[in-house]
Amino acid sequence: MARWQPDAPGRLAAAALDLFEERGYENTTVIGIAERAGLTKSTFFRHFPDKREVLFGESAMTGLLAGAIAAAPAAAGPLEAVAHALDVLGREVFADDRREFSARRQAVLEANPELREREARKRIGLVDAMTEALEHRGVPGRTARVAAKLGALAWEIAHDEWIATNGEDFASLVRQVLAEVREVSAAC
Amino acid sequence: MARWQPDAPGRLAAAALDLFEERGYENTTVIGIAERAGLTKSTFFRHFPDKREVLFGESAMTGLLAGAIAAAPAAAGPLEAVAHALDVLGREVFADDRREFSARRQAVLEANPELREREARKRIGLVDAMTEALEHRGVPGRTARVAAKLGALAWEIAHDEWIATNGEDFASLVRQVLAEVREVSAAC
Repeated sequence: MARWQPDAPGRLAAAALDLFEERGYENTTVIGIAERAGLTKSTFFRHFPDKREVLFGESAMTGLLAGAIAAAPAAAGPLEAVAHALDVLGREVFADDRREFSARRQAVLEANPELREREARKRIGLVDAMTEALEHRGVPGRTARVAAKLGALAWEIAHDEWIATNGEDFASLVRQVLAEVREVSAAC
Repeated sequence: MARWQPDAPGRLAAAALDLFEERGYENTTVIGIAERAGLTKSTFFRHFPDKREVLFGESAMTGLLAGAIAAAPAAAGPLEAVAHALDVLGREVFADDRREFSARRQAVLEANPELREREARKRIGLVDAMTEALEHRGVPGRTARVAAKLGALAWEIAHDEWIATNGEDFASLVRQVLAEVREVSAAC
């Protein structure tokens, strides 16, 4: 009989990250991750299909972004709606107490081709979700795709800077990168 | 005694693409590729380390882009220098007689995770090369990275549109996407 486990996905992700660092991704098993988290294998499989997925909370993030784009003020242009969604992401996901976890996660990803490939697929999925959410606001196809990809560009640079430094929060780094995009493209 | 083979890399890439389509990537061997191209295995290995590399002319493309950015007019801003490099790419690589090959290559990549991962790494390498070439022009680090990533964004969308349609050339699609970037980011 499964008891409810508070934040089981978060505990499993933290345990997986520990083990990927200690033993390497290849040498880590689902049972090992569950044990380290103080949970059972079946709890693991209620949340993730395999060890590869444990660092990728993709569906939650997709829902968060699509919801925030839908909820952006009606007067907001496409990139403003995306920036609004990245503000929400900064509050809900990339908050300051997550910085160290994110930096360690990034280092594990960079060392493992299988995880890098998974991350690349996740990004494509998130860009597609943002594009679709913009199209629901009536933004034409190519414009929606450009705005979603600009959001991903700002996200990626801001995330790298956020995990490398301390002090500045994710959302303000996103705004700085978008200001840079505006300046650079205005001069072309 | 090896004779000089005109455009051996191009013939090997064309043969590999045929076989990847016919038999699948997994079932294709280096010997099979060389035979189909009418060349020897040792000619293959003079140009590529393994079958995975045969669709990725990365070092030539890196040199082309870095050279074109260096050669852009001194007065050109960072994104204009990148656009100049993409014009050269459109003439030298993505010319109209290459459209069908590019469309087939893209389909093979999409069907194969190993090749997708290789393509993602190639893109990172090309963005890094463009960033570095801009820094050599005196562009500050973050601005250089933003301009290089905007170039990659325009390249990716223009390439998708170029292989899907006929008529418009690669360079003019790039310019259209960059104009869209300017409009979208000005309104944010």
